[in-house]
Amino acid sequence: MRQSKLFIPTLKEAPADAVAASHKLMLRGGYVRQVTAGVYAYLPLGYRVLTKVEQIIKEEMAKINVPEMAMPELLPASLWEESGRWQKYGLEMFRLNDRHGRQSLLGPTHEETFTQIVAKSIKSYKQMPIALYQIQNKFRDENRPRFGLLRTREFIMLDAYSFAATREQLDEQFNDEKKAFEAIFKRCGVNVTAVIADSGTMGGKNSTEFQAPAAIGEDTIATNETNTYSANLEMAVSVDTFKPSQEKEEAIVKVATPGQETIADLTKFLNVPATKIVKSILYIVNEKDHVLVLIRGDKQVNEVKLTHLLDADSVRVASDDELYQLTGLKKGSVGPINATWADQIIADETIKNLVNTVVGANENGYQLKNVNFDRDLKIDQVSDLRVANEGEPDPIDHLPLKFTTSIEVGHIFKLGTYYTEKMGADFLDQNGKSQPVIMGSYGIGVTRVLSAVIEQHLTKFGIAWPKEIAPFNLHIVQMKMKDEAQTRLAEQLEAEFSKNYDVLYDDRNERPGVKFADADLIGAPVRITIGKKASEGIIEVKRPSDEVATEMTTTELADFVNKELG
Amino acid sequence: MRQSKLFIPTLKEAPADAVAASHKLMLRGGYVRQVTAGVYAYLPLGYRVLTKVEQIIKEEMAKINVPEMAMPELLPASLWEESGRWQKYGLEMFRLNDRHGRQSLLGPTHEETFTQIVAKSIKSYKQMPIALYQIQNKFRDENRPRFGLLRTREFIMLDAYSFAATREQLDEQFNDEKKAFEAIFKRCGVNVTAVIADSGTMGGKNSTEFQAPAAIGEDTIATNETNTYSANLEMAVSVDTFKPSQEKEEAIVKVATPGQETIADLTKFLNVPATKIVKSILYIVNEKDHVLVLIRGDKQVNEVKLTHLLDADSVRVASDDELYQLTGLKKGSVGPINATWADQIIADETIKNLVNTVVGANENGYQLKNVNFDRDLKIDQVSDLRVANEGEPDPIDHLPLKFTTSIEVGHIFKLGTYYTEKMGADFLDQNGKSQPVIMGSYGIGVTRVLSAVIEQHLTKFGIAWPKEIAPFNLHIVQMKMKDEAQTRLAEQLEAEFSKNYDVLYDDRNERPGVKFADADLIGAPVRITIGKKASEGIIEVKRPSDEVATEMTTTELADFVNKELG
Repeated sequence: MRQSKLFIPTLKEAPADAVAASHKLMLRGGYVRQVTAGVYAYLPLGYRVLTKVEQIIKEEMAKINVPEMAMPELLPASLWEESGRWQKYGLEMFRLNDRHGRQSLLGPTHEETFTQIVAKSIKSYKQMPIALYQIQNKFRDENRPRFGLLRTREFIMLDAYSFAATREQLDEQFNDEKKAFEAIFKRCGVNVTAVIADSGTMGGKNSTEFQAPAAIGEDTIATNETNTYSANLEMAVSVDTFKPSQEKEEAIVKVATPGQETIADLTKFLNVPATKIVKSILYIVNEKDHVLVLIRGDKQVNEVKLTHLLDADSVRVASDDELYQLTGLKKGSVGPINATWADQIIADETIKNLVNTVVGANENGYQLKNVNFDRDLKIDQVSDLRVANEGEPDPIDHLPLKFTTSIEVGHIFKLGTYYTEKMGADFLDQNGKSQPVIMGSYGIGVTRVLSAVIEQHLTKFGIAWPKEIAPFNLHIVQMKMKDEAQTRLAEQLEAEFSKNYDVLYDDRNERPGVKFADADLIGAPVRITIGKKASEGIIEVKRPSDEVATEMTTTELADFVNKELG
Repeated sequence: MRQSKLFIPTLKEAPADAVAASHKLMLRGGYVRQVTAGVYAYLPLGYRVLTKVEQIIKEEMAKINVPEMAMPELLPASLWEESGRWQKYGLEMFRLNDRHGRQSLLGPTHEETFTQIVAKSIKSYKQMPIALYQIQNKFRDENRPRFGLLRTREFIMLDAYSFAATREQLDEQFNDEKKAFEAIFKRCGVNVTAVIADSGTMGGKNSTEFQAPAAIGEDTIATNETNTYSANLEMAVSVDTFKPSQEKEEAIVKVATPGQETIADLTKFLNVPATKIVKSILYIVNEKDHVLVLIRGDKQVNEVKLTHLLDADSVRVASDDELYQLTGLKKGSVGPINATWADQIIADETIKNLVNTVVGANENGYQLKNVNFDRDLKIDQVSDLRVANEGEPDPIDHLPLKFTTSIEVGHIFKLGTYYTEKMGADFLDQNGKSQPVIMGSYGIGVTRVLSAVIEQHLTKFGIAWPKEIAPFNLHIVQMKMKDEAQTRLAEQLEAEFSKNYDVLYDDRNERPGVKFADADLIGAPVRITIGKKASEGIIEVKRPSDEVATEMTTTELADFVNKELG
């Protein structure tokens, strides 16, 4: 491909509003342009990378016998009303009315559509297992689009869906997809960790995220050093190393703690460590129920875990006003004893072994001392409800947890019968009994992969693309377009290498400085500079990671290229 | 590919609301499913055909050095306000508000976006010519989606855009695209005619449509038998064969024609042929101007031609009420003499040579006889404004025009500076002078090509796909899955032919009747049936056009396949 025919509008400086390194590179290198907030055009260079990522996906899906298809992007509201997500999905869904006033939406994901079109047309267990995938534009009306392709309102996603007659079939399909995803990320050159994840609004209970460590990542993952345990911090479990006291249980004493509202206030005022105080926090669940959550004073409540325990649509801490209206209490004085206004009292495991602990007295300005779990408290449920801390032991090998910021590039779900039950997608099993189809769904943020790869492969002046997804494998840079010997050699090498590789030939009438700067941003694995020694058959070769270029004869070059790219 | 792993939900009968033959085939064969009115899912079989059409497009675009990229589908209203099309586009545009209340739209086409992102970033003539293309989903809120993929609300389109510094460059780009389009349609097996076309809301003056003759076509094209002239009926020009009378001009006479409103009434009442009467029709132009159009009594006004002549945004015949309010006249009495209420009087060429003709008297219930063009009328413009009739001579070779219904599958436009002037996309020419970039745009309705191909390649029981876009080249149909000799041979042939061809292997436990019926709908160019003589190495071969299958040895088969598909 001749560079003069490609549209690669490189920039000397990235616009000031670009913060992320990958975003800057994509703008400076002419890979993308923003059309409106969080909505991008993929220019030829960016599109080439996208195409290569997509090609890898297609090949790996073919290896596990999953065929490609395409659902529409414009969907009827009725479909999402069946699953209940038309109401649940919230502001992130783009909604519109057509000319006849019918409500529609732009698909943010396609569980409903696949359930409707595929799962519902499966009649017998004989037609399963089956799986399908698509690669297409998705739409989410992000409140604050940011970091280039990381958080956008229109993005490209691979989404695959599986349909099974049995749990065993689902497990096998899930494992196939997991392996395919790992192969895809490896070939794309993205370093990822598979972590335990929250299923969120997707439904189902069992899901795994693929997280790519990167400075601009919006997630935090917790892993141990041997990678035998890895989880999104939202789901991370740690072992509590606190050693409970062996002291004898004493009688409850009410103490005045005027004006003491926080744990820090109380530790000081009562001269006890935070580990000897129980925090009692009132939550509003599903905007109607009042749930009192107890946790040790040194820990924080993990609301994702709380949501899962309660199987809730929403949880949030009650405001001071709401608390006062319900209980007549101020924040620091709430406690679990005689909390008759609470619909439910639940506790984090950490408070189970506490002896002679401090709790709010349910009387403004007072605490109770010497409260003991088994003796004094009536708790509806005890569970792990706390945020894990870095350095705490993991639950498998008890090695210290390490936290890393990272980008979610993929997410796979065992949906089970979440959608098929709601939408009535049944089949007849081997005994002629009607059963709901068992589904899985599997997604890769294709455009987000670009952000992750770039974050992980930046160089001092540009980028070193992994070879399978580089927009071009080889970049031939001719110094003087008017030098006939150079042109002859450039065209000869272009013709020769184009047989096996994607070759970009910089045939522009530009100064060497401009050409080199652009080449750094294009980041081909091998750059060949054709200059003064062209007539002797000598060129210069440089990989993005090389500090300096190396002189070679064209014979040496052929070996070098095949070694690097073959 | 194993048929058991593909999702091909064939139907015995197409749903009753499917009218078009291609629509029925696509539903019965499990190629597509409707998700909501005019919005389709492309199932694996349909998607394979689409992918092959797209691959052909990619190859032909590469041959003319046009790189691929992708604009977003979600576009800001502001972009279309710059071109004026936000107002003009009407109800066919899907419009929506985002969570912050900003107006957006779903791209029905991308002239504005390419002008903004590409044309505006071209600074110098040195960067041109350049051209780019994308293949993506487009959205138009059709009032009445119909005929399967023919008229849908979400569809796939190839759209290419060219950017030139000179008219000569544009002409060259236009010709390149025209040739590429012809090659694409040929390889897809669609028979098309390139015709003179109306540019409609797209802007620009010069455009060519690619029309595929088909029963369900919504367009009519007029061609002569040698194809030296071909035009959309909207633009078709014919030679008027009417011989004017040689009689002497006589003095005007006013005659009473009480209650005579139509041409048919008048010919009877006055006993003159329609060719001796002039129709005077009042048009409302751009919803404000009153234009009186004169045409010979036996001809109809072509409103597309009228729109072009007036360079109007809209033209329509005035209602009886509007006519009466402006002139005090009823329909039959309107005429061109003393029509002081008309902003303009224009005439079709056919009235120029009439002698002693009849016109409305501008007095209710009266006509004027013996009116003569040069002597009596003051006409602002005379032009070809009539609808061509089948059988009339074409304007090139004077051969009779033949009309054919057809599907518009492609349309190419010389846009010129229509968008770049409005949106301020300028470059510096060789003399350092600022000029607007000269654009062209080029579109193929990819999903519509499917409809056209199918309409043109239906067989008695299914379809005969053209070989380059058949979902599979070879279909191996095994009669008895429990017969080991059959399985051995089927797997051997599958392995062998898969090296060079897309092979579908029907490995389902279904009755032969079911398998054959499905195979007719899948329409592979070569079908191999493996039955009783498998152990002797004998199979049956059938092309969709063959009445009966032919027995062959596997050796003969290899030659046959290479001859048919190679």
